[in-house]
Parts: sequence; structure tokens; C-alpha cells
Amino acid sequence: MYTLYYSPGTASMVVHLALLEIGAPHELKLVDFDRDAQRDPGYLELNPRGVVPTLVIDGRPRCESAALLAMLAERHPEAKLIPPPGTPEREAWQQWVVYLSNTLMSTYRLWFYPAELGAEEHTPEVRAALRKKIEDVWDLLDAQLERHGPYLLGAAFSGADLLLTMLMRWSRNMPRPATEWPALKRLADLVRARPSWKKLYELEGLTEW
Amino acid sequence: MYTLYYSPGTASMVVHLALLEIGAPHELKLVDFDRDAQRDPGYLELNPRGVVPTLVIDGRPRCESAALLAMLAERHPEAKLIPPPGTPEREAWQQWVVYLSNTLMSTYRLWFYPAELGAEEHTPEVRAALRKKIEDVWDLLDAQLERHGPYLLGAAFSGADLLLTMLMRWSRNMPRPATEWPALKRLADLVRARPSWKKLYELEGLTEW
Ligand SMILES: N[C@@H](CCC(=O)N[C@@H](CS)C(=O)NCC(=O)O)C(=O)O
Ligand SMILES: N[C@@H](CCC(=O)N[C@@H](CS)C(=O)NCC(=O)O)C(=O)O
Repeated sequence: MYTLYYSPGTASMVVHLALLEIGAPHELKLVDFDRDAQRDPGYLELNPRGVVPTLVIDGRPRCESAALLAMLAERHPEAKLIPPPGTPEREAWQQWVVYLSNTLMSTYRLWFYPAELGAEEHTPEVRAALRKKIEDVWDLLDAQLERHGPYLLGAAFSGADLLLTMLMRWSRNMPRPATEWPALKRLADLVRARPSWKKLYELEGLTEW
Repeated sequence: MYTLYYSPGTASMVVHLALLEIGAPHELKLVDFDRDAQRDPGYLELNPRGVVPTLVIDGRPRCESAALLAMLAERHPEAKLIPPPGTPEREAWQQWVVYLSNTLMSTYRLWFYPAELGAEEHTPEVRAALRKKIEDVWDLLDAQLERHGPYLLGAAFSGADLLLTMLMRWSRNMPRPATEWPALKRLADLVRARPSWKKLYELEGLTEW
């Protein structure tokens, strides 16, 4: 049994999508950012960084969205969110998931939370540099998908594509959204057509892409 | 057969340590930062970001140090660098490895490469903010290890400790090095006493902790 602590459209989204893809019974608990519930002492017991998501697995609280995706994918191999051990595709999966977490996830954090760099608002120089860091990733991934797509692992969809599409979505109000890169847009269109994506929009009350 | 593209003391260190722990036959190829060899077109074919490490596994180039650690650990279960699938310890391992990559690894990149934030040198405000981001991680990990140490998974050493000790080492010239946190120092002392650590110092020609 799983309990997911989430907030609509945030990093919890990939974990929620994975649960829907798997069809695993789970309970959702909203962490209300409007009242800073992520910093309630009770929540900090579960997640010492004070962020979402937290996934409680058989009573054990776990965090880090990319790791939670891997845990769920391994626990439910029949959902094919991760390729089987001992295959080259699994290595590719591990590489891309760490890459996305290490580059995009961490840079978005700075983009959306200027306080992490000690500022109320970013200077134009810092903004431009963070934007470049993010767009460099779109360049690299678009080239990869152009040659070896349509999915991150090639012909087959996997959980890595859920992570990537969530991260693409966060760029929608940036000067140049990820969907302006053609091979990235193709991947996002495929993922957005999945029942899990549509169901999540209903459940989390999302409207904007 | 493995080929590791490395540079002494950098992010390739954890992969080199894993190869030594496993005792797996491998070839080392130095990527000479002094002549910017990480940006040679031939190297960029292997590693489009132009960074080390790259590990060539059965002819396939793979990158991202934390992912390479996971790949090697899974390929050689007898070395016990990662707990077996289906155990709570494995989930803890996945969580910590992603956490280290998402927080420390990405923040060090900004600390050591001010150009990533569009600056020749960081302003005092940015420096202080990056320092705080890194020290917040030491606080969190020290509390974890104090209660549930001495290793990240508790009583048993794992590959996650290699990653953490490498990352601790990078703080040695910072205002407050990670070894000033007692439970972190205890973990580093245990890892530094391992034959793999000593062997790596010889092979990579490292002297400073
Ligand atoms: N690396 C973490 C990052 C989580 C994260 O930054 N979550 C954000 C929302 S996307 C959050 O909880 N923000 C609330 C806050 O920091 O107060 C993960 O992937 O789980
Ligand atoms: N997330 C990557 C980061 C690798 C990285 O930043 N490597 C640095 C050395 S620690 C590098 O190659 N720097 C050379 C450069 O950027 O020119 C990983 O963990 O493999």
C-alpha cells in the first residue's frame, strides 16, 4: 500500500503518474503550499528537506522523485516502467533518469526559488545563465530523440519519459518552452495522450499544459 | 570489459572506486583537463556534456557518475555495493544516491564553475547561498548518520558511502569542510581506511585528502 504526499503539478507528478500507470492502490495526501504545510513538523519527520513528494511504502517514508520512480518501477515490473536488469536499455534508463535529476531538476529549483541563490529576484545575468543551463539540456535531449527517439529509450515508452515530460511542462512559461524543440514536442505529445496523463489532470485539477 | 575515462579526484572517482571494490578488469583513460580534452570532438561523441566520467560498458558509452555506480553495482551483486531488489535497504540506497546527485553534485558544479551562473567569480551573496545549500546537506546527513549510522544504510557499508565520501572530499578547502560534522567524519574515516580508497590514491596520484 502506498501513500503519496503531493502538490498539484509539482515534482510529485511523476510519482503520481507512475502509480496511475501501474494501477497500484494508493492514497493521496495534499500538502498545502498555501499554508506552508511542507514545513509542518509532522511533515518534516517524513521529509526532512520539507519538499514534495514523499511516498510512504509499507510504512516507510521515502523521498526524491527520481528515486521514487525507480522504486515503483522495480516493484511493479509488469508495468514496464523500467527495463529488466541486465539489459542495455536498463543502463540507458538509469543514465537518463540521473541526468534529468542532476541537471534539470536542480536548475529549476534555482529558477523558481531565487532565495536558494540568496536573492529576492535573480539578476538578468543569473536568469540568462539558468535559462541557458536549461536550454542546453533541451538541445542535448532533442538531438538524442531526433536520432534515437521517439522515446528516451528509443521505440519503447518508459518511466523516464514521464519524468522528462513533467520537467518539460515546467518550462511552459519560460522564454523558450521545451515544446519548441521538435523531437521533444513529439515525445510530450505521446506522453500527454496516455490515459495516466489525462487522469492525473482530472485528479490534480490541472488545466494548463 | 570496462573502460573508464577519468580525471584524478573528480566525479570519476566514485566509478573508479566501484571498479576497485568489485575487482573488475578495466582500462583507465586519462582525460587531460589541462588541454581541455573533455571538449575534443571524439570525446564529445562518448559524452555530449563534455564531462568526466564516461564508462564504456561492452562497447556502449554511459555517463553520470551516480548512474554508473548503480550500473556497476547491479552488474556485480557479489560486491554488495547495492542491496538486493525487493529490500527496504535498496530503496534507501536509491533515495540517498539520487539525493546526493540532485543536491551536492549539482551545487558543487556551481561552486566550482561560476561561469555556470554567468559570472567570472561569484558575488559574496551567491557564494554564501551556495555554501549554505551545501552545509544544509551536511546538517541533514549528519543527523541521519548520528541516529542511523555509521553508514548511509546503517550497519552495512555500500556504494552510496563511496559517493558521499567523494563529495565530502570536495569540501576540504571550503570554509567549513564536511569533516567538521562528527558523524560525517566517522563515515569518511571508515571509507578512507578501505583498500580501494588507498589504491585509488596511488593510481590517481592523489595526496591531499
Ligand atoms: N529533488 C526533489 C525536489 C523536490 C522539490 O523541490 N519540490 C518542490 C516542488 S516541485 C517543493 O516541494 N517546494 C516547496 C518548498 O520548497 O517549500 C525531488 O525530486 O523530489
Ligand atoms: N553529473 C555529472 C557531472 C560530471 C562533472 O561535472 N564532471 C566535472 C569534474 S568533477 C568535469 O568533467 N568538468 C570538466 C568541465 O566541465 O569542463 C556526473 O556526475 O557524472
